[in-house]
Amino acid sequence: MERTLAAETIKKIGKKVRLCGWVNARRAHGKLVFVDLRDRSGIIQLVGEKKLGKLRISDVIDVQGKVRKRPANLVNPKLLTGKIEAEVKKLKILSAAQDLPFDTGGEDLKVSLPTLFDYRALSLRHPKVRAIFKVQETIITAFREILKKEGFTEIQVPTIVPSVTEGGAQVFKIKYFDKEAFLAQSPQLYKQIMVGVFERVFTLAHAYRAEPSITTRHMTEYLGLDAEMGFIDSFEEIIEMVEKVVRFIFQKIAEERKEELKLFKATLPKLSQKIPRLKMREAQEIIYRRTGRDNRKESDLEPEDEREICRWALEKYGSELIFITHYPTKKRPFYTYPDPKDPEYTCSFDLLGRGVEWVTGGQRINDYQTLVDHIKKWGNKPEDFELYLQAFKYGMPPEGGFCLGAERMTMQVLGLENIREASLFPRDMERIDVRLAKIKKS
Amino acid sequence: MERTLAAETIKKIGKKVRLCGWVNARRAHGKLVFVDLRDRSGIIQLVGEKKLGKLRISDVIDVQGKVRKRPANLVNPKLLTGKIEAEVKKLKILSAAQDLPFDTGGEDLKVSLPTLFDYRALSLRHPKVRAIFKVQETIITAFREILKKEGFTEIQVPTIVPSVTEGGAQVFKIKYFDKEAFLAQSPQLYKQIMVGVFERVFTLAHAYRAEPSITTRHMTEYLGLDAEMGFIDSFEEIIEMVEKVVRFIFQKIAEERKEELKLFKATLPKLSQKIPRLKMREAQEIIYRRTGRDNRKESDLEPEDEREICRWALEKYGSELIFITHYPTKKRPFYTYPDPKDPEYTCSFDLLGRGVEWVTGGQRINDYQTLVDHIKKWGNKPEDFELYLQAFKYGMPPEGGFCLGAERMTMQVLGLENIREASLFPRDMERIDVRLAKIKKS
Repeated sequence: MERTLAAETIKKIGKKVRLCGWVNARRAHGKLVFVDLRDRSGIIQLVGEKKLGKLRISDVIDVQGKVRKRPANLVNPKLLTGKIEAEVKKLKILSAAQDLPFDTGGEDLKVSLPTLFDYRALSLRHPKVRAIFKVQETIITAFREILKKEGFTEIQVPTIVPSVTEGGAQVFKIKYFDKEAFLAQSPQLYKQIMVGVFERVFTLAHAYRAEPSITTRHMTEYLGLDAEMGFIDSFEEIIEMVEKVVRFIFQKIAEERKEELKLFKATLPKLSQKIPRLKMREAQEIIYRRTGRDNRKESDLEPEDEREICRWALEKYGSELIFITHYPTKKRPFYTYPDPKDPEYTCSFDLLGRGVEWVTGGQRINDYQTLVDHIKKWGNKPEDFELYLQAFKYGMPPEGGFCLGAERMTMQVLGLENIREASLFPRDMERIDVRLAKIKKS
Repeated sequence: MERTLAAETIKKIGKKVRLCGWVNARRAHGKLVFVDLRDRSGIIQLVGEKKLGKLRISDVIDVQGKVRKRPANLVNPKLLTGKIEAEVKKLKILSAAQDLPFDTGGEDLKVSLPTLFDYRALSLRHPKVRAIFKVQETIITAFREILKKEGFTEIQVPTIVPSVTEGGAQVFKIKYFDKEAFLAQSPQLYKQIMVGVFERVFTLAHAYRAEPSITTRHMTEYLGLDAEMGFIDSFEEIIEMVEKVVRFIFQKIAEERKEELKLFKATLPKLSQKIPRLKMREAQEIIYRRTGRDNRKESDLEPEDEREICRWALEKYGSELIFITHYPTKKRPFYTYPDPKDPEYTCSFDLLGRGVEWVTGGQRINDYQTLVDHIKKWGNKPEDFELYLQAFKYGMPPEGGFCLGAERMTMQVLGLENIREASLFPRDMERIDVRLAKIKKS
């Protein structure tokens, strides 16, 4: 008999069905036993007698039974299948579960963060935890979809790299046969090279940072959604592409992830007709006028500045997102394009949302000799950039791009407190699946 | 003025257009100069006088001009835009190229393999090289599309792992703060864990093998297209899913990549109504009868056996693909499900095509205690599999899955001689972008 998913049962009232899944909860009322069966589509209530009584939470079962309406007073409005239930005729246990380390039946999973990750194979099964990764899937899928529509080619770039290109301290070293190699901190140089091939490219790339501190915003391995585009007439074209991408992602989440947003009582960021844009210096001036905090000489926005300027954007424009542009040249990577009108500042931007950075990007230097000069000025050796420089030696159009952290966007959309919650198997200096204290020293 | 792509010009005869791209070739005929302009969509011929004469191959240009029909005797049937040309009125050089190290204007790029990769930023721009990665993009996109249709969830799994789980020798070590960690050899254990969460999952995961030899079929970093599905009623369901996926990929290539196949004079594998299936022992028997080569006691197919059985499948069934099933238990990983009818053999399979392996997969052990026993029997420690074993401790349905190498499939479809050609930036023991001889020792 073919399997029916829990969510499909609402169309099968009066019919015999076969259901498979996990025991999510069990309740007894006199002789009757109620079991919530969980499968990938949702939850459905099973009703039966004695034979259901021996089931344990998380057992995997395969049942046959008849779908029927629940009595009006027993309808559960919180459940998609809340108006119906399945009366069990046949029951088979496919896999018996051991005792659980914590209660998984509640609407929230009430465990500490270490426990959440110590039992990750189990905690991920909780509907609210699982929902995080359906939202993430939508973000990623929407990112790809809109960029393909815009003529971008998806590329696959490597993560083992021959040299350290963007700051040396926070990089992981690999023993590579009798040599050493490194884990990529970003796909930046490769996506730029590929502008020379496909003009418009995007890639989903793991990025690695040997971040030696534990914060709520950093992990050692994360997923970057990276894009790069050539033949731009101006820096603003990149910003406009980011705006298009972000709006499309929000639209897809709104369409496909209503239930998930509801679980988190989350709302998508408010957006004005056009996302406001400010130069960094203008932002500092506004912050000074609003708070008296004088950071007008600082070369970057501090976290408190980012929160303040987001508050301002919301009050003034009704937008929870704002582009900050023209960061100082010395604070940005060597490849960043200096503003021709004022080379102390760059054609770069961050998209801030709800007080933190969501996207970073900018125009890049596309002239070979300028790039060589910048590499030296930033204290690097052109020899270490042989392949990268080739792309500019043999003709590179004006170009730029951006990067969006998949976990960070998931975190911000759902209002999670820690970025680790937005990673299936988060890595940091204290954990790779298990706590590192358990792993032998090198 | 808005830009027009080369491929769009065929609809703009008589119109003024702006075209941007690279100089792909240049020819002079008396006073007239002909330039092939290459952009992401293809190639178009530009015609002009003196000002085009100073252009160099690979210069990036931005031109305005009028589209017109070519005289009948000058039509180029090999080019999509072969019936037209653009008469240049305005020319701007966006980026001037230096002298090229080799000729890039021919239909084939006639360079040695080392040169191909020494100048990768340039060689990738050749239309025939570029075509490889458009085919690869289609393979990857089709893989995702069919699996989403089949109810799979796309997941993102990490590549830094705490222990070596599938053979210890060929693994890369990372210095992870004051500990050691490893680069994942496959996403196997994570995708299995995720069956407990989403039932059906797939992931695109970089896999790393410290392969200490140079072959035409191996790289140290490659892209695996991995899928895993729960609640299977039988081992055959996995094989059927593979067949569905492979057919869908071929269909998409046939629809979207006609031009690219033509460039390589490549044809998609012939398929019979149903891809034939043979047990490994049956295959050995057939090979023995056909060739007299008696490998009937061997525990795996040798490369020559794989080629022979593919020849047989093509002759007998008209199929260039064949499933070989039931490999011996001792030759497969610890998690492989032994055939209940004969536990010396496993419910596993390889899909062979054109003489080599394309896909590998099988049913997995889903019973906790059996899995613990196998881990020990295979010489591993259950403690090293803590997170993985959790997934089985708390209820796991019968499940299985498969993996398809993105580069290998690209190579086989196009008939490339070396798998490196199917990787944008291939890594092996002699090269990470540049030749490793140039990189300092660890």
